[in-house]
Order: sequence, then structure tokens, then C-alpha cells
Amino acid sequence: VSAERVRVGLLGCGTVGEAAARILIANGDEIRRRAGTPVQLARVAVQDTSKARGVDLPAESWTSDAWSVVTDPDIDVVVEAIGGIDPAKALILAAFASGKPVVTANKELLSTHGQEVMDAADQAEVDFIFEASVGGGIPIIRPLKESLAGDRVTRIMGILNGTTNFILTRMSETGGSFEEALAESERLGYTELDPSADIEGYDAAAKLAILSSIAFNARVVAGDVHREGISTVSARDISAAHELGYEIKLLGVAEIQDGAITARVYPAMLPKTHPLAAVRDVFNAVFVEGEESGELMFFGRGAGGGPTGSAVVGDVVEVARNLATGGRAVGCTCAGYAKLRPQEETPVRYYVVLSVADRPGVLSEVAGVFARHEISIASVRQEGQGDQATLVAITHTASEGQHQATFANLGGLAVVKSVDSTLRVEGTDER
Amino acid sequence: VSAERVRVGLLGCGTVGEAAARILIANGDEIRRRAGTPVQLARVAVQDTSKARGVDLPAESWTSDAWSVVTDPDIDVVVEAIGGIDPAKALILAAFASGKPVVTANKELLSTHGQEVMDAADQAEVDFIFEASVGGGIPIIRPLKESLAGDRVTRIMGILNGTTNFILTRMSETGGSFEEALAESERLGYTELDPSADIEGYDAAAKLAILSSIAFNARVVAGDVHREGISTVSARDISAAHELGYEIKLLGVAEIQDGAITARVYPAMLPKTHPLAAVRDVFNAVFVEGEESGELMFFGRGAGGGPTGSAVVGDVVEVARNLATGGRAVGCTCAGYAKLRPQEETPVRYYVVLSVADRPGVLSEVAGVFARHEISIASVRQEGQGDQATLVAITHTASEGQHQATFANLGGLAVVKSVDSTLRVEGTDER
Repeated sequence: VSAERVRVGLLGCGTVGEAAARILIANGDEIRRRAGTPVQLARVAVQDTSKARGVDLPAESWTSDAWSVVTDPDIDVVVEAIGGIDPAKALILAAFASGKPVVTANKELLSTHGQEVMDAADQAEVDFIFEASVGGGIPIIRPLKESLAGDRVTRIMGILNGTTNFILTRMSETGGSFEEALAESERLGYTELDPSADIEGYDAAAKLAILSSIAFNARVVAGDVHREGISTVSARDISAAHELGYEIKLLGVAEIQDGAITARVYPAMLPKTHPLAAVRDVFNAVFVEGEESGELMFFGRGAGGGPTGSAVVGDVVEVARNLATGGRAVGCTCAGYAKLRPQEETPVRYYVVLSVADRPGVLSEVAGVFARHEISIASVRQEGQGDQATLVAITHTASEGQHQATFANLGGLAVVKSVDSTLRVEGTDER
Repeated sequence: VSAERVRVGLLGCGTVGEAAARILIANGDEIRRRAGTPVQLARVAVQDTSKARGVDLPAESWTSDAWSVVTDPDIDVVVEAIGGIDPAKALILAAFASGKPVVTANKELLSTHGQEVMDAADQAEVDFIFEASVGGGIPIIRPLKESLAGDRVTRIMGILNGTTNFILTRMSETGGSFEEALAESERLGYTELDPSADIEGYDAAAKLAILSSIAFNARVVAGDVHREGISTVSARDISAAHELGYEIKLLGVAEIQDGAITARVYPAMLPKTHPLAAVRDVFNAVFVEGEESGELMFFGRGAGGGPTGSAVVGDVVEVARNLATGGRAVGCTCAGYAKLRPQEETPVRYYVVLSVADRPGVLSEVAGVFARHEISIASVRQEGQGDQATLVAITHTASEGQHQATFANLGGLAVVKSVDSTLRVEGTDER
């Protein structure tokens, strides 16, 4: 590292990269004070150097050759803001090979090849940190790694995707359909061109994999996370949830019990009194339970240039301070591959809506099916009459497998016309 | 530092000290992994070494001489868990003089003599960190110092005292009086023997001073914080707040505008849609607004052995890692003494309840007084009849001084029988 300053090489200048560049330049005084050394944005690699960008740097700082940045002896820290696996991974590994620490917001890479990249950083003895990869501007990875370093986290529950939270908030507040809320989200520019990564829970699953790995010192990848999206949530589900005192949220839930981890993303009913239930619109939040710390929640903007760029710059400051003082950030703390419990064996509670025949004995037959699968019913209500007769039940905790077998059997009963809705219930004290 | 391990000397073994000791011993594996070195609780100083405690340490580890711990060459890190100014301050300074970093949860010391102690740590070139001094188990100081290192914080709004939040939650949920809720809090053991430090806002003011100093790189002490308690909040205020869509919370609010800081603690009306309004019972939360990060909130248990002890241990892990690697924690980042804006000049909004005569022209007279002091009225309602006639108004933003002058003039109007309630309104978009 140069004696007088820490020089940053930035790869990629999209939403996050440009915001990070802007903040590094604009807030230089604050950054110098907190890093203990001046931090200079020295080079930026972009695909098209002729494109105008909102970053005030001399022409010679721009390059279309990212490889020249990661190997440049005059660069002390690399910020990878390209995203995706290829070429981001190879560039990061090359930066390590050149002895350079790396800051990234790349959740795809971390949730798939995270272990390989972290091992490489440890071998090269350089910092590799990624606060912005989960929750945008919300400080969550550093608190998990550092503030809770003395505690054991038992559970994480998060609203990890802003687009789906916006859609569910709109559905909850207007009574409208999923399609209407999705269209509004598209109008407001909250939705990607292909919205499936958000809607189907892939984005949330990647983030949950990263959080679980850190919280449980384990190696959880995106593919380990059981995943369901929100496109099946109906206006009727939402109004029924309200009647029962619940909201429906797309939750990422990860728990460790008896040394086994479960990790799943799905729409779930959450009591209105739960702190996550009040998280509206595009906001994200992560609810953490620690043995000693009890319940914690971290709330904020999960996306966008300013919040995500600010998180990237916070990481750059830490790396710069470490370069100046000789310190090291917390590296990989994985104890090894943890045991993952299949979703089928995961303890859950369910909210179930059945269309049923309107005649005596229906409840008894339905309750009998639950009983055969050893599931206790916490509450049950019969609603409507004639063709509209429905039965709404909430179960006590039993495994996913018991529940799925029950639903299959219920569908086969003559008195059950259809299983209209099944949603997990989370955030109640019962486990 | 010993080559094989970091040895901790603990001063004080009350609620926080005992919990920290217990966690250091019980979670040794996790702590070693995150610190990169084993961390051993080597000595504990207590007033009465004969008292039984829930800490499994050999008899020779206990001493009644705290001074021998801070000067012991075999101790690498001192945890100060005595509290108060004397002898905590002198012991901490002695630890620094012996080249030892210090971890503390001591909000009294930090909010009064913080600058002197931090300067001494900087001069001795040792770490001095204090995550547990604000918000118990909630990670807030590290996120402010590190995660937001690249951003500029513009505003902090916090529920910083669990006892008063419990009392206001009970009043809100039962409709009962302050006295009834205080009595319940006493029954449940949430209240100190002398509850005035909580009830009158001194505890919250000390914590707000610490947060403001860090967020604004300034030097704010407890005495700088304008402070009002909750004993004047009535059941009627709470029900009126509910009717208008608000909750009443004891808030610590600190802002920086045009280089001047305002810091105040008082009961205030907060829209029910604000994330802080959902913070119930003894929970604490800190809402932070950053130029880039936008709105963030940190929520959790603000007191108790487990949460506070866990925060202390998180700090010990950071110090131990720094000792092992040669790094340094972020020290004092104050740019200097910031200008403090007197409360009188602070822009605020108010909710005002007046008992008025029931005759035409009252509203006009009352509105005239607001107008003379150049305060715009956002909404006004006349309620009740005859002896029960009241006028409820919410103002637009104007200075505290304008509002106080208005209230004094209103009290002098013949048509105003009494000014029954005046409460600030916070958490609306208007500034």
C-alpha cells in the first residue's frame, strides 16, 4: 500500500458501481477520518469507456480492461461491481493473486462459489468483504460477524427482496390481485425485465444462503434453500390473513436445531404484532434471534444505488483501515459443512383453506385426516354456506412432510371439493 | 499480548459483567474462531470475593483489587463493567497507561467524560470500544462507525429506554394511567429503585449524546441534550393520539442541519405507520437517516445481562482480533466541537389541546395567536360542547420558541380556559 493513500480500482460502473464511485469522491473527508488514511478512487473499468457517467474522474482513470486493474501494482483495493459469476469470479481471484483485498456486492457469486473465493482470500491473506451483498444499505453482515461474535444465532427470518415486498404490501393495502400489484411495480420501475428472480424467490434464496452461512458458521449455497415464490398468493389469502390478525410476507427463514440447518424461502403468514409485519413497500429487514442477544431486527433499503453504494464504501473504509494499520477483517468462519435438514423434515405450522360440502360431519372427517398424520389443529373456522362453504384451519407445529401428506389425503376426501390455499405460519412463539 | 491467547481482566461482576464472563467461558469455540485466537477470562475484580457468582473460574482468578488487574502484565484486555464515573474512569485511564485496550458499557462515563477518555486511548494507541453502552444487545455503534463510514448521517431518532417504552406501551394498550403502568413496571422488576433516571429521560439523554457524537463526528455530552420525561403523559393524550393515527413514544431525536446539531429527549407523537411506532414493551430501537443509505432501523433488547453481555463480548472479540493481527478499532472520529442549536431554535411540530369556551369566534381568536407567531396550523378539530369544549390542533414546522410563545399567549386568551396538552409531533416527512 502506498504510504500516503489507499488507491481503489473499481470494476463495473452500473447502479452500484457508479454510486460507490460518487460517494468515494464526494465524502472523501469523512472517509479519510474513519479509515485513518485518504482513500482515492484511482481507476474504473467499464465495458464502454465512451459512455458518459456521473463520476468526476480524469479520462486516464477509465479503462475497458478490467484485468489491467486487478493486476495494477498501483491499485491497493479492488471493488467488484460487475455482478454474476463470469468474469467476476476470475477477476476477484486474480486480484487476490496480486495480493489485493476485494470488496463486492455480488450475491450470485457468494451464494454459489462463495467458499472457493473465501478460501482463496484466506490463502492470499487479504480481506474479502461483502456487506452490500445482502440487504443493500442495511448493515447486517458486519453485525452478524462482529457484534454477535460472542453469541450463538439460532434463527434468521428476513424480508430479503424489495420487489416482492412491494407487491405484497400493495395487495395488502389495496385488496388487489397479484397481477395488478405486479403491474404497478413494473410501472414504478421496481421490477427487473425478467421478474422471475424476484417473484419466484431466487434472489431471496441467494441472500438467505449468505446469511445462513455466516450466522451458523456453515456452508449453505443457494441451491440448498427450499424456495417458493409469491405468484400463487391471492387477494383472498390476504383478506383471510387480515381477518386472523396476520400479514403475508415473502420470508427467508433459516434455523439451526440440534446441529442441523433448515433454510427456506416462501410466502408465509406472520402475526401483525411481529416487527417484520410492519416492514412495508420496498424495504427489507432481517430479524435475528440469538441465544444471548434475544430478538434483533435490522431494517432499511434493500436495493438502490445510494444504499448499496454506501455499504460498498463502508467496506472499502474497513479494508483501507486494515491496510493502513496491518489489521485483518473477519474472514471465513465456517466450521465446516453443516448438516442440512430436508424441507420435508422441517417443523412448520400451516394455514389451510378447504372448499367443503355444506353438511354435518365434514369437520369430523377433515379433523380425522389431520389426526391420522399426528397434526394438532390450533384453530378451525367454518365459513359460508352451500357452494361457498369453506373450512379455515391453522395447525400446530409438525413436519412439512406430515403436512404435505395430510393435504394430499384431504384432496381425496369426498367432502373436500378443493384445497384452496396452504400457507406456512411463521413468527409465532411456537416452534 | 501472549503468543497463544488473549487474556481478559474483568472489572465488576454485576448483571452485565457476570453475563459477559459466562458468555466468554461458554462460547469459547465460537469466540476463538471469530477472534482468530483463544480468548481467556483470566481475572475478575469484585468488591466482595466471598459472594457466590455464576461464573466458573478458579478461586485465584478473583480479586477485590481492581487496580491490580489494570496493571497486571499478564492481562491483555480490560473489560470495565463497574459503571459510573468513579473509580471506573481512573481504572480505564490506568489500563490505557499500562498499554491495555478497554471495552466498556459505561454510558454515564462516555456521555460526560467521553472525550477525555477517548483522547487518552488515542494517545496510548490502544482500542477503546463500547458497543454495549447504547441499546444493550443492539448493534448500533459499530454500524454507525463502520458500516456507515462512507455516508453522512442526517438524523437519529431512538427509543432508547426500555422502562419508559414499557410504560407507554401499557398505557397505549390498556388505556390506563401513567401511575398504573409505572406500578406494573415496578411489579415486573423493569424499574430501578429510583425510577427518575428512566422516567425523566436522563438515561435516554446519555445514550443520545453518545449516538450523536458518533453519527455527527461531534462532541455532544448528556448536558447538551434538551430533556423532558413522560410523567406528564396522560391516558387522554394517548387516546387522542390513537384517534389521530399516532402513538406516543419517549424519543431521543438528534439532527444536523447547516452544521448545527440539535439533540432532545421528550415524549412525542409518532405516526402509527412509522417503524418506531411498532416497537413495543421493553424493546429499544434506533432509526437512522443517512444521505445515501436512506432510512435504517436497528431493533432489539436494550437492557439485560444476556443482550448487554453479548455486546461486550463482541467488542472483546474485536479487540482480541486486533491484538492478534496488529489492527486497530475505529477510534475517536470527532472533527471538533460542533455547534449545538438551542432547543428554542429547533424546528418542531406540535400537537396542542386547549379547553375553550363554547361560542362562535373561538377558533378565529386561537388561530390568530398562531398566525401572529407565524405558525401555520396543519389541522384543527373542535370537540365536545359546553364545559367539555376542546380544540385539538397540529402545527406545521416552526421553532420551539415560536411555539412556546404561542402557548403562553393562548393561556392568556379569555376564550381559552386551559392549555391541556402540548406534545411534539415527530416522524412525519415535514421538517
